[in-house]
Amino acid sequence: MSAMDDFLSARTSLIQEDRSLRREFLSTNLRSDKEVEADKIVRKIRAHEAATIWTEELPSVPHPFPGMEFLTGKPIIVKTKLFEILSKMPKGALLHAHLDATVNVEYLLELAYKYDALHVRVHEPLQASKLSTNLPEFRYLPETEFTSLTSLTDPSYLPGSWVPLKSARNSFSAELGGQDGFDKWVIGTMTINPTEAYVTHNTITKIWKKFLSTFRIAQGLIRVEPIFSEYVRQFFLSSIEDGVSYVEPRINFIYKYMVGADGKENLPHRDWLIMFDRVVNEVKQEMAQQGREGAFIGARIIYSTVRFITPEELDWYLEDCIALKKEFPHLIAGFDLVGPENEMKPLIYYAKNLLRFRERQKEEGVDIPFIFHAGETLGDGTEADVNLYDAILLGTKRIGHGYSLVKHPKLIETCREKGIAVEVCPISNEVLRLASSMPMHPLPVLMNYGVPVSLCSDDPAVFGNMGLTFDYFQVLVASEITGLSTLGALARDSFEFSMLDEETKKVGLAEFEKRWEEFIDYVLEYGKL
Amino acid sequence: MSAMDDFLSARTSLIQEDRSLRREFLSTNLRSDKEVEADKIVRKIRAHEAATIWTEELPSVPHPFPGMEFLTGKPIIVKTKLFEILSKMPKGALLHAHLDATVNVEYLLELAYKYDALHVRVHEPLQASKLSTNLPEFRYLPETEFTSLTSLTDPSYLPGSWVPLKSARNSFSAELGGQDGFDKWVIGTMTINPTEAYVTHNTITKIWKKFLSTFRIAQGLIRVEPIFSEYVRQFFLSSIEDGVSYVEPRINFIYKYMVGADGKENLPHRDWLIMFDRVVNEVKQEMAQQGREGAFIGARIIYSTVRFITPEELDWYLEDCIALKKEFPHLIAGFDLVGPENEMKPLIYYAKNLLRFRERQKEEGVDIPFIFHAGETLGDGTEADVNLYDAILLGTKRIGHGYSLVKHPKLIETCREKGIAVEVCPISNEVLRLASSMPMHPLPVLMNYGVPVSLCSDDPAVFGNMGLTFDYFQVLVASEITGLSTLGALARDSFEFSMLDEETKKVGLAEFEKRWEEFIDYVLEYGKL
Repeated sequence: MSAMDDFLSARTSLIQEDRSLRREFLSTNLRSDKEVEADKIVRKIRAHEAATIWTEELPSVPHPFPGMEFLTGKPIIVKTKLFEILSKMPKGALLHAHLDATVNVEYLLELAYKYDALHVRVHEPLQASKLSTNLPEFRYLPETEFTSLTSLTDPSYLPGSWVPLKSARNSFSAELGGQDGFDKWVIGTMTINPTEAYVTHNTITKIWKKFLSTFRIAQGLIRVEPIFSEYVRQFFLSSIEDGVSYVEPRINFIYKYMVGADGKENLPHRDWLIMFDRVVNEVKQEMAQQGREGAFIGARIIYSTVRFITPEELDWYLEDCIALKKEFPHLIAGFDLVGPENEMKPLIYYAKNLLRFRERQKEEGVDIPFIFHAGETLGDGTEADVNLYDAILLGTKRIGHGYSLVKHPKLIETCREKGIAVEVCPISNEVLRLASSMPMHPLPVLMNYGVPVSLCSDDPAVFGNMGLTFDYFQVLVASEITGLSTLGALARDSFEFSMLDEETKKVGLAEFEKRWEEFIDYVLEYGKL
Repeated sequence: MSAMDDFLSARTSLIQEDRSLRREFLSTNLRSDKEVEADKIVRKIRAHEAATIWTEELPSVPHPFPGMEFLTGKPIIVKTKLFEILSKMPKGALLHAHLDATVNVEYLLELAYKYDALHVRVHEPLQASKLSTNLPEFRYLPETEFTSLTSLTDPSYLPGSWVPLKSARNSFSAELGGQDGFDKWVIGTMTINPTEAYVTHNTITKIWKKFLSTFRIAQGLIRVEPIFSEYVRQFFLSSIEDGVSYVEPRINFIYKYMVGADGKENLPHRDWLIMFDRVVNEVKQEMAQQGREGAFIGARIIYSTVRFITPEELDWYLEDCIALKKEFPHLIAGFDLVGPENEMKPLIYYAKNLLRFRERQKEEGVDIPFIFHAGETLGDGTEADVNLYDAILLGTKRIGHGYSLVKHPKLIETCREKGIAVEVCPISNEVLRLASSMPMHPLPVLMNYGVPVSLCSDDPAVFGNMGLTFDYFQVLVASEITGLSTLGALARDSFEFSMLDEETKKVGLAEFEKRWEEFIDYVLEYGKL
C-alpha cells in the first residue's frame, strides 16, 4: 500500500470511531436498503436547495442560509421541498412544550371571539405609535360584571375598564387598522416577531421580557374553563396532523384556580386534570372512529411551578402534585420547576424540599420523576449552569434544554450511561438568543457524544414553530452528518425516553415503525418526481 | 448525616470531577497563597463591573454585557479596571497571528507617509456616498515611474493613475474630509468596523469578503523592503509592551517577491527572512540595553501559503520551505496552509503532497512540523470541519482555531492525550461571526475536556484587538470558572506548546514565572486601593 492508501484507510477508521457514539449509528446495520436510498434522496434535495433557494438574495431577507434565524427564514423554509417531505414524517413524541404556548394564536383568538363573557382592557390610551407596548389584558367575567362599553379606542374610553372582546374588535378605530388591526395587535402581543428577536430585544435578558409577557396575556384567554378543553383538543389535533402521536406537556400550576364557566376564579387543579383526561379520551375515540388509532397514543402532564416561589410555597405544590398523582396516576408524568434560569432561583435553593419530596413519595406510594429544566443558559459556572449538577444529582429523568451540558465532560458521560435524555429545543434556543442561528447550536456535540436527544418545540405559539417539522428542518439543514436516519433515531428516542409505561411505549413504537416505513416509501416516490 | 448533607457532599465531588481535566487544576496545589488572594480580587472586580459599568445603557451601546460583541464593547472594555489589570499581565507567547495584520493601521500609515516612492490610486472616481467600497491600491514605485499628479479627488483625476501618497493625502478634497478624511478612508478599508461586522456583512461568508480585502490593501504598504523591517520591529515592540515575550507569526509566502528598495518586485523569500532575523536580533539587543532581556525571547516564522493553489504549485512552496529551513533553521517553526476554510480547498486535496513533504524532510535532514488551520467553521461534517481529521492524521503539532473541534469526541481525546494545543482566537471568531458574543464561544468545552489552549489575536490590526489583553479580557469576563489562575495556565501553555527549542522554552518559562509573581504583587496592591 502507498502512503496515501494508508492515510485514507486511517482516515476512514478515525471518522468512524469519532462518530461511533451517535445513536443512529448504534443500529446502522438495521437500516433497510429502502431507508438508505431515501436518505440519499433527502441529502440530494438538501444540497440542491442549499445551492439554489438558500442563495437567492431577497429584499426581505438580505442573506439567507440554511439554518438561519428562524423568524426571518420561515417564509423560505415553507417553500422548500425538504419542508414538504419532513411535514409528512412521523415524529414520535413531543416531550418539551409549555401547554399555554402550544396552540396557534390565531386559532385561540377565533375561539375567544365565541364567548360573550370574554372582556379586554388596556391601562393606557391606545396610540398608533405605542401599540406594541400597550398590552391587552383579557378576562372571562361573571355575567353580573358584563359591561356595555363598546370601544377601547373611543376618546371616552377610561383606561382600566373592561370592554366585551367582540365589541372591542368591531369598534377598533380605523386609524389603528380596524378589526384586522385589532387582531394584528393582539396576536403581536402573544408572539415574537423577527424585529423583536433580532433587533429590539437582541439579548437573552431582553427577549425573555417579551417572552414572559406573551404568557401573561395568553393566560387570560386560555385559563378559562370553556376554552381550556377546546385549547387542549386543538393542541392534540394539530400535533397529530404534524405526525406527533404522544405529547407530554408541562402545565404551569402556579395559579391555584382557573376561571370557571361562571366567570369566577374557582376551578381547582383536579378539575383541570378531569378536563384534560376527557379531551385525551375524546381525541382517542375520534381517531379510532377515523380508523387512525395509532395516530394518538395519548398525553401526560409534567406538573410545573415557577422558580420564584419560596421553598415553603414549593412544599404546597409538591403535596398538591402528590395528591393529583394519587387521583390521576395515568396523567401525572413528572415534576418540574420552570422560568428563566438566568434570573430566577437555582435548583439548590429548593434542594431540601425536593429531597423531602422523594421521601414523601415513598410514604404515599407514588412515583413522580423529576424532569427538570437545567442549563438553559450561556453561563459558564453560573447558577443556571450549575443547575445541571443538581438536576442530575436529584435524579432527573430527562433534562429540559441542557444547553450548557456540552461543557461538562462528567455530566455528558452520566447522561449517556444512565440514559438521561436532553429535550433539545432548537428554534426556542435560537429565538431566545442562546444561539444566533442553527449552525451555532451545540446539538451536534450532544449527538456525537451519544447523549440521547429528543427534539422539542417548547413554545410554538410564541415562536411560530407549530408542530415539530420546523425544528426537525432546522436540525437537518445545519449538518452534513445528520440525515433521514438521524431524524428517525431522534423520533424513536422521543418514545424511548418518554414517561409512558413500557407497554404503551411498545405500542407507540410499533405504530411508529409502521408509519416510518410508509414515510420511507413516500420519500422514494417523491424522489422519482 | 442528613440527606441534605449527603447531597451537598456528592455535589462537591461531582463538580470537582467534572472540572478535573482543566489544565489549571492539574497544578492547583501549586498556587501560592498570594495568587489565591489575587484571584479573589480579580473575581470581585469582575462581579462589581458586571453589575455596574456593564449594565449602563448607552446611546451608542443599547444593551451592553460582559463578553459582548468586541467592536461595539471595546470603548467600555478599555474603561474597566479589569482591563487595566490584565494589560499588566505577562502573557507568554503569541502563537497565532498573521504577520500582515499585526501592526496598528494608524502606525503603518504614519510609516508609509515617510516614503516618497509610495503611490496610491483608485479605479473609480471617489464619491462621498461610495467611499467605503472604493478601495485604494498602494504601490512603492521605482523612481522612473514617480508621477507628479497631486490629487485623487480632483475632477481631472484619471482613475487608475498613480498619485504620490503624501500628495494624495494633502490634496484630499475638503468635501471628503481633507487629510483626516483621507486617513479615515484608508484606515476604514484596512479594518472592520462594528456596522460591517454586525449589520452589513453579518454572516461568515460576507464578513470574510471584507476581511480578505483588508489584506489586499495592506499588502501594498507592508510588502515593501524599507517598510517591512519597520513593520516587523513595531510588531515585536508592541507585543512586548503588552506582556508577550515570544511570537510565532504566520507569514504568507504566496507572493514570490517583495517590492525592493528600488521599487521593483524582486526581493525573494530568503531576503525577507534575513530582514526578519536582523530585526529579531536588534530588538533583543535593544531590550538587553534597557536591562529587559527576558522581555523578548525571540520570534519564529510559520511558513504559510494559501489554500487556493494547485497541488503542483504547493510542491514548489514545500521545496521553498525546505530550502529556507536549511538556511535559517532557527527561523522556520512550521508549515501551514491558510485562507477561508469554508470556501477554499480542504487539506485532503493536498494530502499526497503533504505526505511526500514529510519524506522530503527526512531526505534533507530537516524537521518542519505542520501547524494547520483546521475546523474554523460552523459546519458539521463539511470539508472545513473534516479538515480536523486530516490535520491530526498528518501530525499537526497544534490546531489553528479548531472551532468545530468540540464536536469530535475522539479528536478531543487525541488532542488531550497527545498534547495538540488549540490556538483559540476569541475575538477573531466573534468578529468573523462564528460566535455572536464571547459567552457563545465553545472555549469552555475545550478547557473542561483538558485540551491545551493558547489564546491568540489572529489579525489584531483588522479587528482592533492589539496585543493579547483584549482576548484575555473577553475570556475572563465570559466565565465564572475562569479566574486569574486559569489565565496564568493559558499563558504558560502558550510557551509549553510553542515551537521553541526546549532550552529557550525553559528560559522563557523561568522568566514568565518571575514576571507572574510581580504581576500577582501588582494585583494585591491594586486590591488595596
